[in-house]
Amino acid sequence: MELMYTGKTKNVYKLPDGMFLLKFKDDMTGKDGVFDPGSNQIGLTVKGAGQSGLRLTAFFFEKLKEKGIPTHYIDSDPEAATMTVKPAKPFGNGLEVICRYRAVGSFHRRYGDYIEEGAALDAFVEVTLKDDQRQDPPISEDALDMLGILSKKDFSTLKALTQEIASLVKALLAAKGLDLYDIKFEFGKSDDRILLIDEISGGNMRVFREGKPVEPFELENIMLSL
Amino acid sequence: MELMYTGKTKNVYKLPDGMFLLKFKDDMTGKDGVFDPGSNQIGLTVKGAGQSGLRLTAFFFEKLKEKGIPTHYIDSDPEAATMTVKPAKPFGNGLEVICRYRAVGSFHRRYGDYIEEGAALDAFVEVTLKDDQRQDPPISEDALDMLGILSKKDFSTLKALTQEIASLVKALLAAKGLDLYDIKFEFGKSDDRILLIDEISGGNMRVFREGKPVEPFELENIMLSL
Repeated sequence: MELMYTGKTKNVYKLPDGMFLLKFKDDMTGKDGVFDPGSNQIGLTVKGAGQSGLRLTAFFFEKLKEKGIPTHYIDSDPEAATMTVKPAKPFGNGLEVICRYRAVGSFHRRYGDYIEEGAALDAFVEVTLKDDQRQDPPISEDALDMLGILSKKDFSTLKALTQEIASLVKALLAAKGLDLYDIKFEFGKSDDRILLIDEISGGNMRVFREGKPVEPFELENIMLSL
Repeated sequence: MELMYTGKTKNVYKLPDGMFLLKFKDDMTGKDGVFDPGSNQIGLTVKGAGQSGLRLTAFFFEKLKEKGIPTHYIDSDPEAATMTVKPAKPFGNGLEVICRYRAVGSFHRRYGDYIEEGAALDAFVEVTLKDDQRQDPPISEDALDMLGILSKKDFSTLKALTQEIASLVKALLAAKGLDLYDIKFEFGKSDDRILLIDEISGGNMRVFREGKPVEPFELENIMLSL
């Protein structure tokens, strides 16, 4: 099993049959021991975080499969904190596609002159480049097209898929009394088809309950309890 | 004559007849005495800079008038470094609309992972908020619409006007052996019509001659010499 890529919260291995294995780590993004899904660096390491993230990711990917939404998910091993996935080519060096229901995080930092923190947004979609060195800069549809990263046609597919998936996650959370503030996805292409890749866990969304943030472990507990 | 607004490089007065007077200052954007049109602060003050900027602005606005492109320009007084303009309402607290022919400045700082510095761009248009406190953040067509700053219809008008005006400025420069790398405009609305406002001078464009930057004074000299 060949290690292909070492990520901040995941390692990626290539399997002999051409599929890939994602190994979820116990590292979480944030700063000085405090978790923050909007952060770009590792802020804390908690035993079991990888398994917890994997369990929640598997839960959401199974739900997407039921709805016929294309993802890279094949199966998962919760004990080993691993997930087997189909190969998919990222757009450029990777994009983050964010769907926002509330004006928080970097959105509010940028546009705070025009909107109050926490105000409702209507499934607003924006794209940022995965580029740690440049602090994941936001990028427009026109720039993505011009730089050869994403065609206008693919942008439109990706935006629609993002809103569809976010809306499904939001509804699943709402059924447990939770509010989704924002969520970020990654997409890739396989055989000319756009797939959701990476993960869906507490690590890539902001969730609140009665106005208080819900941390990733608590989120998994609430979502996977009967 | 009532002082309505004190800008970094201009003051705005209201005239008794309802028109406005822009007084060009000798202050230039940059840092530590070095001029930079991409900068957001005053870096130097040069005697005559206001008059020079006004003369070049009047030159370009007259050219736009000949082409029937709507601007706020009425007339100018080069000696006093003032320009009389029609009132126009900015979008939100003001937008900067940038047209880029080369990947330099903040564009290259953001997207340098995908494009070499100085590479050609095809009249690429992007919008930033005028917000010094937040370092003029870039903003997408969707976000402008959602925040009530600019409708999709107005965005499309503004983008087309930007490319038309930039292309005219580029051609006028090219006739003098100069290359336009990028230029930023401001627009406003008057009686439901979108007008170019503010100025067009060395202060809001990057111009090169044989690969070397051309400073605002030199630009005015070259453009206004016979």
